[in-house]
Amino acid sequence: MQETQDFPLVEGDVDRPRDAAPRSLGQIGLDHFAPYLINRISARWNADMLDRLKEYGLSTLEMRVLAILSVMPDVTINEIAVFAVTEQSTMSRTLHGLEGRGLVTIRRREGDQRVREVNMTKDGRAAFNQVWPEMHDSLNRMFAGFSDTEYEMLIMLLTRVLRNIRHHDF
Amino acid sequence: MQETQDFPLVEGDVDRPRDAAPRSLGQIGLDHFAPYLINRISARWNADMLDRLKEYGLSTLEMRVLAILSVMPDVTINEIAVFAVTEQSTMSRTLHGLEGRGLVTIRRREGDQRVREVNMTKDGRAAFNQVWPEMHDSLNRMFAGFSDTEYEMLIMLLTRVLRNIRHHDF
Repeated sequence: MQETQDFPLVEGDVDRPRDAAPRSLGQIGLDHFAPYLINRISARWNADMLDRLKEYGLSTLEMRVLAILSVMPDVTINEIAVFAVTEQSTMSRTLHGLEGRGLVTIRRREGDQRVREVNMTKDGRAAFNQVWPEMHDSLNRMFAGFSDTEYEMLIMLLTRVLRNIRHHDF
Repeated sequence: MQETQDFPLVEGDVDRPRDAAPRSLGQIGLDHFAPYLINRISARWNADMLDRLKEYGLSTLEMRVLAILSVMPDVTINEIAVFAVTEQSTMSRTLHGLEGRGLVTIRRREGDQRVREVNMTKDGRAAFNQVWPEMHDSLNRMFAGFSDTEYEMLIMLLTRVLRNIRHHDF
């Protein structure tokens, strides 16, 4: 991830802070109010996923868990809860459901018995490999007409937003 | 809103489509998977709003409704449902609740009795004016360190994403 200072959008502009004076929403405009756009995109993505996942017997949350485990081994329940944007109790239930279906394993970490590590089984990976084309197709539709540079620009800006507001170090 | 072609990020790059070959999530990386970042930011914003709104006696959805009405007069229930990212039945209940508290009015549109138009009352505006500084403060925290140009760049990119995936013309 490139840092802001390495990638100024407009020379000399990056260090100028945004005006912090409390403008009204009317002055900003709903279509220039970033949280509104982000909420609408998030809801649309999730509704689309829910629709696509019906035939695979996976919930959106289960798909998120498998997606996370497909790229991260030995991840803790707490970490998955953060990455999958859900509460720890819900995540615990979801993981035990997936364990019962043989898609994940949950075991105590060597050296720290309080921590449980989750991993994907072979069947879990197979299940994710089935749904991944749907996620990828949805992603492609979302970013139709975007160049790689524009996509990376959006990732960089969103990463900075997330760093500003997240409650965890990851 | 500027159109893409008027605002190329990198000369000659804008018209090159993103590679549509189905890469794996491992190749993309979770932190470069835009829907993941968007979901996390959306959830964080909503949790923050929920927390801030407690003392004002408004739900996140009620706040969204008032925010929308503060910038749009004579809006229909269906339109508010889309803008507030919720289902029409939930929106209908929410609006009648706000009507009962004297914060909005709902009336049939002149010339088309099937359509109901919603407006904010004086008390509704007063309620929104109370919570707006919280929203604005949350927005400022989200975009700490962003220049106006970077903020506008993000808005432009998110607007293009929303246009790609929305189901409504607005």
